[in-house]
Amino acid sequence: MKAIKKIDEMRREVSSIKSRGMSIGFVPTMGYLHEGHLSLVRQSLQKADVTVVSIFVNPAQFGQREDFKEYPRDLNRDSEVLEKEGIDYLFVPEADEIYPQGYKTYIEVHDLQDKLCGRSRPGHFRGVCTVVLKLFNIVNPDVSFFGQKDYQQAIILKRMVKDLRLEVKIEALPIIREEDGLALSSRNKYLTQEERKAALVLSKSLKEAQSMIEKGQRVSAAIIKGMKEIIGREPLVKIDYVEIVDMDNLDPVARIEKKALAAVAVFIGKVRLIDNTILLF
Amino acid sequence: MKAIKKIDEMRREVSSIKSRGMSIGFVPTMGYLHEGHLSLVRQSLQKADVTVVSIFVNPAQFGQREDFKEYPRDLNRDSEVLEKEGIDYLFVPEADEIYPQGYKTYIEVHDLQDKLCGRSRPGHFRGVCTVVLKLFNIVNPDVSFFGQKDYQQAIILKRMVKDLRLEVKIEALPIIREEDGLALSSRNKYLTQEERKAALVLSKSLKEAQSMIEKGQRVSAAIIKGMKEIIGREPLVKIDYVEIVDMDNLDPVARIEKKALAAVAVFIGKVRLIDNTILLF
Repeated sequence: MKAIKKIDEMRREVSSIKSRGMSIGFVPTMGYLHEGHLSLVRQSLQKADVTVVSIFVNPAQFGQREDFKEYPRDLNRDSEVLEKEGIDYLFVPEADEIYPQGYKTYIEVHDLQDKLCGRSRPGHFRGVCTVVLKLFNIVNPDVSFFGQKDYQQAIILKRMVKDLRLEVKIEALPIIREEDGLALSSRNKYLTQEERKAALVLSKSLKEAQSMIEKGQRVSAAIIKGMKEIIGREPLVKIDYVEIVDMDNLDPVARIEKKALAAVAVFIGKVRLIDNTILLF
Repeated sequence: MKAIKKIDEMRREVSSIKSRGMSIGFVPTMGYLHEGHLSLVRQSLQKADVTVVSIFVNPAQFGQREDFKEYPRDLNRDSEVLEKEGIDYLFVPEADEIYPQGYKTYIEVHDLQDKLCGRSRPGHFRGVCTVVLKLFNIVNPDVSFFGQKDYQQAIILKRMVKDLRLEVKIEALPIIREEDGLALSSRNKYLTQEERKAALVLSKSLKEAQSMIEKGQRVSAAIIKGMKEIIGREPLVKIDYVEIVDMDNLDPVARIEKKALAAVAVFIGKVRLIDNTILLF
């Protein structure tokens, strides 16, 4: 594994890979890697000739009162883990190379960026799209891997890629969970033992949604009510949103007549956690 | 010259050119070509192995009450002219391929996009950046040529290219003028004979600015006053703005102590015309 900090050096490696006709699989991350990230890495190792993983805690996707400074970082551990997985390149750009002085350009995916998490995190998806487009322009991947825990992010990036006629394929891979159901997230580290236990209501509420569907319930309002009841039992958990939305445009659906997404966001203390599931018939 | 309408066909040609190690020069236009455009085309023919010219009247860069529908078009004449110049590819994409149903992605170059023309044309530069980035992603040029009549546009595109780490070089070439000083513009076609004559105050005011500099004037307010007096003599002409700004950040400069840009925008009837000059010592 070769670790690279400089954009120009990464570009040179990419040119050389491309000139040999090899495909590039890319996993952009903010580091503090868990099994969710590693599932993406392994998929890339399988599907592409060369795998590039980036670690960059992107300031542009954090709000002013969010956890950019506290976001967990452990580059040494991440680096060891990735080396063991057998990736080819670890790209760790510096912030002042990604956002040099006078930086002014942002990508907006209108409408989709304002829904679900976009409502409580204005500017978040603008920051995500901007850094991902820039990383794509540097790494020039054939395929890039994202987790479905950030379902909205994956939908927005797919739209961006289509709209801007980029030649990269976006693959969104299933959520990886702890045995007790908690979706893996670098932010789980923030939770106290008590909060960690309380956080289980996210996945429980999603299971309840699926179970209501299986019992024949089709009215979203009824399912959302059931989900909120489960979450409401935990006094440590404050709901940001509980929604059932269309898989493609993320608009709320009133009656579930085809595959739909149940999505939850909560605050536990200062920690914001999200989870979702695709509701199946 | 090969004329191409479909994005996928253009892409295939580009791949083939690149695989032969040839460079691509690109001149994106909205058609109704004049000598200004042709100066860009000729530069591309000189500098690049293959020259691609696009003609696309981009709806996203027109305001709701602007002249998108009336914008002059003459594809047959343009096509003949370009064939005669000896370009390799004429790319004429269709609007529903550039902005397919559900299109949502826009590029914003903050701050720079709000100055000068951005104030009276909100959304204009967002539309320009969006279509140019997309065309770049399709045509994959090594160098792309723009006119300095749209100085702000060139500055914004250079910023975008730098910020997004694109590998294209932006070249901005001098304004081409009629013998009497009128800057060439496809919109000149709209002018009546009387308006055409009145429009000369733009270039006259810019000449006056340069002449005041040469006489030792350094105070922008005094120069702008002189420029406005000249323009004010023509009752058909309504000033949008007259400014002297920094060459890089487009902020107004109070005292001219290095190269600066004098920029003018006016309305003559419904027609909006712009012109500018770099003030030299």
